[in-house]
Amino acid sequence: MARTRGGVVVGGGIEMTPRYLEDFAVGQTYGSGHIRIEGDRIKSFAAEFDPQPFHLDDDAARNSIFRGLAASGWHTAALTMRLLVESELKPAGGIVGAGFDEFRWPHPVRPGDELRVESEVIEVRPSKSRPEQGLIKVRTTTFNQDGKAVQVLVSNLVVPRRGSDGNNGAL
Amino acid sequence: MARTRGGVVVGGGIEMTPRYLEDFAVGQTYGSGHIRIEGDRIKSFAAEFDPQPFHLDDDAARNSIFRGLAASGWHTAALTMRLLVESELKPAGGIVGAGFDEFRWPHPVRPGDELRVESEVIEVRPSKSRPEQGLIKVRTTTFNQDGKAVQVLVSNLVVPRRGSDGNNGAL
Repeated sequence: MARTRGGVVVGGGIEMTPRYLEDFAVGQTYGSGHIRIEGDRIKSFAAEFDPQPFHLDDDAARNSIFRGLAASGWHTAALTMRLLVESELKPAGGIVGAGFDEFRWPHPVRPGDELRVESEVIEVRPSKSRPEQGLIKVRTTTFNQDGKAVQVLVSNLVVPRRGSDGNNGAL
Repeated sequence: MARTRGGVVVGGGIEMTPRYLEDFAVGQTYGSGHIRIEGDRIKSFAAEFDPQPFHLDDDAARNSIFRGLAASGWHTAALTMRLLVESELKPAGGIVGAGFDEFRWPHPVRPGDELRVESEVIEVRPSKSRPEQGLIKVRTTTFNQDGKAVQVLVSNLVVPRRGSDGNNGAL
Protein backbone atom coordinates (compact mmCIF):
# COMPACT_ATOMS: atom_id res chain seq x y z
CA MET A 1 0.00 0.00 0.00
CA ALA A 2 1.23 3.45 -0.84
CA ARG A 3 1.20 5.73 2.16
CA THR A 4 0.13 9.32 1.72
CA ARG A 5 1.44 12.26 3.69
CA GLY A 6 -0.15 15.59 2.83
CA GLY A 7 -1.35 14.14 -0.45
CA VAL A 8 2.14 12.99 -1.41
CA VAL A 9 2.77 9.32 -2.03
CA VAL A 10 5.97 8.49 -0.22
CA GLY A 11 6.29 4.74 -0.20
CA GLY A 12 4.87 1.32 -0.99
CA GLY A 13 2.89 0.13 -4.00
CA ILE A 14 3.88 -1.76 -7.11
CA GLU A 15 5.05 1.40 -8.86
CA MET A 16 7.49 2.09 -6.01
CA THR A 17 9.74 -0.98 -6.36
CA PRO A 18 13.12 0.31 -5.22
CA ARG A 19 16.11 -0.14 -7.49
CA TYR A 20 19.55 -1.21 -6.31
CA LEU A 21 22.86 -0.52 -7.99
CA GLU A 22 22.62 -3.83 -9.85
CA ASP A 23 19.32 -2.71 -11.43
CA PHE A 24 20.79 0.35 -13.13
CA ALA A 25 22.54 0.31 -16.51
CA VAL A 26 23.94 2.96 -18.81
CA GLY A 27 21.34 4.09 -21.34
CA GLN A 28 18.25 3.54 -19.20
CA THR A 29 15.81 6.44 -19.37
CA TYR A 30 13.06 7.51 -16.99
CA GLY A 31 10.24 9.94 -17.74
CA SER A 32 8.00 11.79 -15.29
CA GLY A 33 4.59 13.31 -14.86
CA HIS A 34 3.91 16.99 -15.49
CA ILE A 35 3.72 19.93 -13.12
CA ARG A 36 2.36 23.40 -13.89
CA ILE A 37 4.00 26.50 -12.47
CA GLU A 38 1.73 29.48 -11.77
CA GLY A 39 2.70 33.16 -11.73
CA ASP A 40 1.54 33.63 -8.14
CA ARG A 41 3.75 30.78 -6.93
CA ILE A 42 6.71 32.13 -8.95
CA LYS A 43 6.33 35.39 -7.01
CA SER A 44 5.77 33.86 -3.57
CA PHE A 45 8.69 31.44 -3.96
CA ALA A 46 10.87 34.38 -4.98
CA ALA A 47 9.69 36.51 -2.05
CA GLU A 48 10.92 33.80 0.33
CA PHE A 49 14.06 32.60 -1.46
CA ASP A 50 15.13 34.80 -4.39
CA PRO A 51 13.73 38.30 -3.93
CA GLN A 52 14.92 39.92 -7.14
CA PRO A 53 12.63 42.19 -9.20
CA PHE A 54 12.54 39.93 -12.29
CA HIS A 55 11.07 37.10 -10.19
CA LEU A 56 8.68 39.28 -8.16
CA ASP A 57 7.09 41.90 -10.35
CA ASP A 58 5.78 41.80 -13.92
CA ASP A 59 6.65 45.43 -14.72
CA ALA A 60 10.18 45.22 -13.33
CA ALA A 61 10.69 41.90 -15.13
CA ARG A 62 9.84 43.40 -18.53
CA ASN A 63 12.85 45.71 -18.27
CA SER A 64 15.21 43.04 -16.95
CA ILE A 65 17.56 40.55 -18.58
CA PHE A 66 14.61 38.10 -18.59
CA ARG A 67 12.28 40.41 -20.60
CA GLY A 68 9.31 39.24 -18.54
CA LEU A 69 8.49 37.43 -15.30
CA ALA A 70 10.66 34.33 -14.91
CA ALA A 71 10.80 31.71 -12.17
CA SER A 72 13.83 31.61 -9.92
CA GLY A 73 16.18 28.91 -11.15
CA TRP A 74 15.97 27.46 -7.64
CA HIS A 75 12.21 27.14 -8.06
CA THR A 76 12.79 25.24 -11.32
CA ALA A 77 15.34 23.06 -9.54
CA ALA A 78 12.94 22.34 -6.68
CA LEU A 79 10.10 21.42 -9.05
CA THR A 80 12.50 19.21 -10.99
CA MET A 81 13.25 17.38 -7.75
CA ARG A 82 9.52 16.86 -7.15
CA LEU A 83 9.13 15.40 -10.64
CA LEU A 84 12.22 13.24 -10.14
CA VAL A 85 11.06 11.87 -6.77
CA GLU A 86 7.74 10.87 -8.34
CA SER A 87 9.31 9.41 -11.48
CA GLU A 88 10.18 5.76 -12.00
CA LEU A 89 13.83 6.39 -11.12
CA LYS A 90 13.59 4.96 -7.62
CA PRO A 91 16.91 4.23 -5.97
CA ALA A 92 16.49 2.15 -2.82
CA GLY A 93 17.06 4.48 0.11
CA GLY A 94 15.90 7.54 -1.85
CA ILE A 95 17.37 10.08 -4.22
CA VAL A 96 20.51 11.22 -2.42
CA GLY A 97 22.87 13.49 -4.33
CA ALA A 98 26.63 13.24 -3.86
CA GLY A 99 27.36 16.25 -6.05
CA PHE A 100 26.70 17.52 -9.54
CA ASP A 101 28.83 17.60 -12.68
CA GLU A 102 26.71 20.03 -14.67
CA PHE A 103 23.90 22.36 -13.73
CA ARG A 104 22.46 25.13 -15.87
CA TRP A 105 19.25 26.86 -16.86
CA PRO A 106 19.33 27.30 -20.64
CA HIS A 107 15.87 28.89 -20.98
CA PRO A 108 13.63 30.84 -18.55
CA VAL A 109 10.55 29.28 -16.96
CA ARG A 110 7.41 31.42 -17.43
CA PRO A 111 4.04 31.57 -15.64
CA GLY A 112 1.80 28.73 -16.81
CA ASP A 113 4.64 26.53 -18.07
CA GLU A 114 4.10 22.77 -17.78
CA LEU A 115 7.32 21.05 -16.79
CA ARG A 116 8.39 17.42 -17.06
CA VAL A 117 11.74 15.68 -16.74
CA GLU A 118 13.64 13.00 -18.61
CA SER A 119 16.50 11.22 -16.86
CA GLU A 120 19.17 9.11 -18.50
CA VAL A 121 21.65 6.91 -16.69
CA ILE A 122 25.10 7.75 -18.09
CA GLU A 123 27.37 5.91 -15.64
CA VAL A 124 27.08 3.14 -13.02
CA ARG A 125 29.96 2.30 -10.72
CA PRO A 126 30.47 0.49 -7.41
CA SER A 127 32.11 2.45 -4.61
CA LYS A 128 35.74 1.52 -3.96
CA SER A 129 35.65 2.45 -0.30
CA ARG A 130 32.08 1.32 0.54
CA PRO A 131 31.24 -2.14 -0.76
CA GLU A 132 27.59 -1.77 0.24
CA GLN A 133 26.91 1.03 -2.24
CA GLY A 134 27.79 2.67 -5.51
CA LEU A 135 27.15 5.77 -7.57
CA ILE A 136 25.06 6.36 -10.63
CA LYS A 137 25.47 9.43 -12.81
CA VAL A 138 22.16 10.67 -14.20
CA ARG A 139 21.47 13.46 -16.68
CA THR A 140 18.09 14.99 -15.83
CA THR A 141 16.71 17.44 -18.37
CA THR A 142 13.66 19.51 -17.49
CA PHE A 143 11.48 20.44 -20.46
CA ASN A 144 8.66 22.94 -20.87
CA GLN A 145 5.49 22.32 -22.90
CA ASP A 146 7.27 23.44 -26.08
CA GLY A 147 10.01 20.85 -25.64
CA LYS A 148 12.60 23.46 -24.70
CA ALA A 149 15.13 22.45 -22.06
CA VAL A 150 14.82 24.80 -19.07
CA GLN A 151 17.28 22.95 -16.82
CA VAL A 152 20.07 20.44 -17.35
CA LEU A 153 21.41 18.69 -14.27
CA VAL A 154 23.98 15.90 -14.17
CA SER A 155 23.84 14.31 -10.71
CA ASN A 156 25.87 11.68 -8.94
CA LEU A 157 23.46 9.66 -6.81
CA VAL A 158 24.33 7.30 -3.97
CA VAL A 159 22.64 3.91 -4.54
CA PRO A 160 22.85 0.88 -2.22
CA ARG A 161 23.84 -2.53 -3.57
CA ARG A 162 21.37 -5.37 -3.32
CA GLY A 163 21.66 -7.07 0.07
CA SER A 164 22.62 -3.93 1.94
CA ASP A 165 20.02 -2.32 4.21
CA GLY A 166 19.58 0.51 1.71
CA ASN A 167 20.50 3.11 4.29
CA ASN A 168 24.25 2.86 4.73
CA GLY A 169 26.32 5.51 3.16
CA ALA A 170 28.63 8.45 3.44
CA LEU A 171 27.45 12.00 3.83
CA MET B 1 15.30 54.73 -0.83
CA ALA B 2 15.05 51.01 -0.41
CA ARG B 3 11.71 49.64 -1.50
CA THR B 4 10.12 46.86 0.48
CA ARG B 5 7.91 44.14 -0.91
CA GLY B 6 6.52 41.73 1.63
CA GLY B 7 9.24 42.77 4.06
CA VAL B 8 11.99 42.09 1.54
CA VAL B 9 14.28 44.92 0.50
CA VAL B 10 14.62 44.68 -3.26
CA GLY B 11 16.27 47.85 -4.44
CA GLY B 12 17.71 51.29 -3.74
CA GLY B 13 19.53 52.58 -0.67
CA ILE B 14 23.20 53.20 0.02
CA GLU B 15 23.82 49.57 0.91
CA MET B 16 22.44 48.50 -2.47
CA THR B 17 24.97 50.24 -4.73
CA PRO B 18 25.11 47.97 -7.77
CA ARG B 19 28.48 46.64 -8.88
CA TYR B 20 29.59 46.43 -12.49
CA LEU B 21 32.18 44.08 -13.96
CA GLU B 22 34.87 46.72 -13.40
CA ASP B 23 34.10 46.73 -9.66
CA PHE B 24 34.87 43.04 -9.15
CA ALA B 25 38.36 41.63 -8.56
CA VAL B 26 39.71 38.19 -7.73
CA GLY B 27 40.02 37.71 -3.98
CA GLN B 28 37.12 39.94 -2.93
CA THR B 29 34.92 38.34 -0.27
CA TYR B 30 31.34 39.05 0.73
CA GLY B 31 29.61 37.90 3.90
CA SER B 32 25.89 37.72 4.64
CA GLY B 33 23.33 37.86 7.39
CA HIS B 34 21.99 34.75 9.10
CA ILE B 35 18.85 32.75 8.52
CA ARG B 36 17.39 30.06 10.78
CA ILE B 37 15.76 26.94 9.36
CA GLU B 38 12.94 25.40 11.39
CA GLY B 39 11.86 21.75 11.40
CA ASP B 40 8.32 22.59 10.33
CA ARG B 41 9.56 24.48 7.26
CA ILE B 42 11.96 21.62 6.42
CA LYS B 43 8.93 19.32 6.30
CA SER B 44 6.61 21.67 4.40
CA PHE B 45 9.27 22.51 1.81
CA ALA B 46 9.88 18.79 1.34
CA ALA B 47 6.16 18.04 1.03
CA GLU B 48 6.00 20.46 -1.91
CA PHE B 49 9.34 19.83 -3.58
CA ASP B 50 11.24 16.81 -2.24
CA PRO B 51 8.78 14.38 -0.65
CA GLN B 52 11.18 11.75 0.66
CA PRO B 53 10.79 10.24 4.13
CA PHE B 54 14.11 11.60 5.51
CA HIS B 55 12.92 15.18 4.83
CA LEU B 56 9.32 14.66 5.99
CA ASP B 57 9.22 12.53 9.09
CA ASP B 58 11.44 12.35 12.18
CA ASP B 59 11.00 8.62 12.74
CA ALA B 60 11.64 7.65 9.13
CA ALA B 61 14.64 9.99 9.04
CA ARG B 62 16.29 8.26 12.01
CA ASN B 63 16.54 5.04 10.03
CA SER B 64 17.71 6.71 6.82
CA ILE B 65 21.10 7.60 5.40
CA PHE B 66 20.76 10.97 7.17
CA ARG B 67 20.30 9.45 10.66
CA GLY B 68 17.77 12.16 11.54
CA LEU B 69 15.59 14.81 9.89
CA ALA B 70 17.59 16.75 7.29
CA ALA B 71 16.58 19.60 5.01
CA SER B 72 16.27 18.93 1.30
CA GLY B 73 19.44 20.09 -0.41
CA TRP B 74 17.19 22.24 -2.61
CA HIS B 75 15.90 23.97 0.50
CA THR B 76 19.49 24.70 1.53
CA ALA B 77 20.19 25.97 -1.97
CA ALA B 78 17.12 28.23 -1.94
CA LEU B 79 18.03 29.69 1.48
CA THR B 80 21.57 30.23 0.24
CA MET B 81 20.14 32.26 -2.63
CA ARG B 82 18.15 34.38 -0.18
CA LEU B 83 21.29 35.08 1.84
CA LEU B 84 23.23 35.83 -1.35
CA VAL B 85 20.61 38.25 -2.71
CA GLU B 86 20.71 40.16 0.59
CA SER B 87 24.50 40.10 0.87
CA GLU B 88 26.80 42.87 -0.31
CA LEU B 89 27.57 41.01 -3.54
CA LYS B 90 25.30 43.14 -5.70
CA PRO B 91 25.87 42.77 -9.42
CA ALA B 92 24.06 45.48 -11.39
CA GLY B 93 21.07 43.82 -13.04
CA GLY B 94 20.80 41.17 -10.31
CA ILE B 95 22.30 37.79 -9.51
CA VAL B 96 21.89 35.89 -12.76
CA GLY B 97 23.55 32.49 -13.01
CA ALA B 98 25.04 31.27 -16.29
CA GLY B 99 25.87 27.84 -14.91
CA PHE B 100 27.77 26.21 -12.09
CA ASP B 101 31.19 24.58 -11.91
CA GLU B 102 30.76 22.87 -8.57
CA PHE B 103 27.75 22.16 -6.39
CA ARG B 104 27.63 19.83 -3.41
CA TRP B 105 26.19 19.41 0.05
CA PRO B 106 29.00 18.14 2.30
CA HIS B 107 26.99 18.10 5.55
CA PRO B 108 23.24 17.81 6.32
CA VAL B 109 21.20 20.82 7.46
CA ARG B 110 19.23 20.12 10.65
CA PRO B 111 16.20 21.75 12.30
CA GLY B 112 17.24 24.93 14.11
CA ASP B 113 20.45 25.44 12.13
CA GLU B 114 21.51 29.05 11.56
CA LEU B 115 22.95 29.48 8.08
CA ARG B 116 25.15 32.18 6.60
CA VAL B 117 27.18 32.42 3.41
CA GLU B 118 30.62 33.60 2.42
CA SER B 119 31.32 34.37 -1.21
CA GLU B 120 34.72 34.79 -2.83
CA VAL B 121 35.36 36.12 -6.31
CA ILE B 122 37.73 33.65 -8.01
CA GLU B 123 37.62 34.88 -11.62
CA VAL B 124 36.59 38.02 -13.53
CA ARG B 125 36.46 38.08 -17.30
CA PRO B 126 34.85 40.19 -20.02
CA SER B 127 32.63 38.41 -22.52
CA LYS B 128 34.22 37.89 -25.93
CA SER B 129 30.90 37.89 -27.78
CA ARG B 130 29.05 40.53 -25.72
CA PRO B 131 31.08 43.66 -25.08
CA GLU B 132 28.44 45.08 -22.71
CA GLN B 133 28.92 42.32 -20.13
CA GLY B 134 31.21 39.78 -18.54
CA LEU B 135 31.25 36.85 -16.17
CA ILE B 136 32.44 36.51 -12.62
CA LYS B 137 33.07 33.16 -11.00
CA VAL B 138 32.12 33.12 -7.33
CA ARG B 139 32.58 30.39 -4.73
CA THR B 140 29.72 30.61 -2.25
CA THR B 141 30.04 28.46 0.86
CA THR B 142 27.08 28.07 3.18
CA PHE B 143 28.01 27.49 6.84
CA ASN B 144 25.98 26.34 9.82
CA GLN B 145 26.35 27.76 13.34
CA ASP B 146 29.22 25.34 14.05
CA GLY B 147 31.23 26.60 11.08
CA LYS B 148 30.61 23.42 9.08
CA ALA B 149 30.14 23.86 5.34
CA VAL B 150 26.69 22.57 4.36
CA GLN B 151 26.84 23.67 0.72
CA VAL B 152 29.59 24.64 -1.71
CA LEU B 153 28.52 26.33 -4.93
CA VAL B 154 30.80 27.75 -7.62
CA SER B 155 28.67 29.97 -9.88
CA ASN B 156 29.30 31.85 -13.08
CA LEU B 157 27.35 35.10 -12.88
CA VAL B 158 26.49 37.45 -15.73
CA VAL B 159 27.54 41.01 -14.82
CA PRO B 160 27.07 44.13 -17.00
CA ARG B 161 29.98 46.43 -17.73
CA ARG B 162 29.80 50.03 -16.57
CA GLY B 163 27.99 52.16 -19.14
CA SER B 164 25.67 49.36 -20.28
CA ASP B 165 22.02 49.53 -19.20
CA GLY B 166 22.61 46.68 -16.77
CA ASN B 167 19.98 44.53 -18.43
CA ASN B 168 21.49 43.34 -21.67
CA GLY B 169 22.56 39.76 -21.82
CA ALA B 170 22.09 36.33 -23.21
CA LEU B 171 19.64 33.88 -21.82
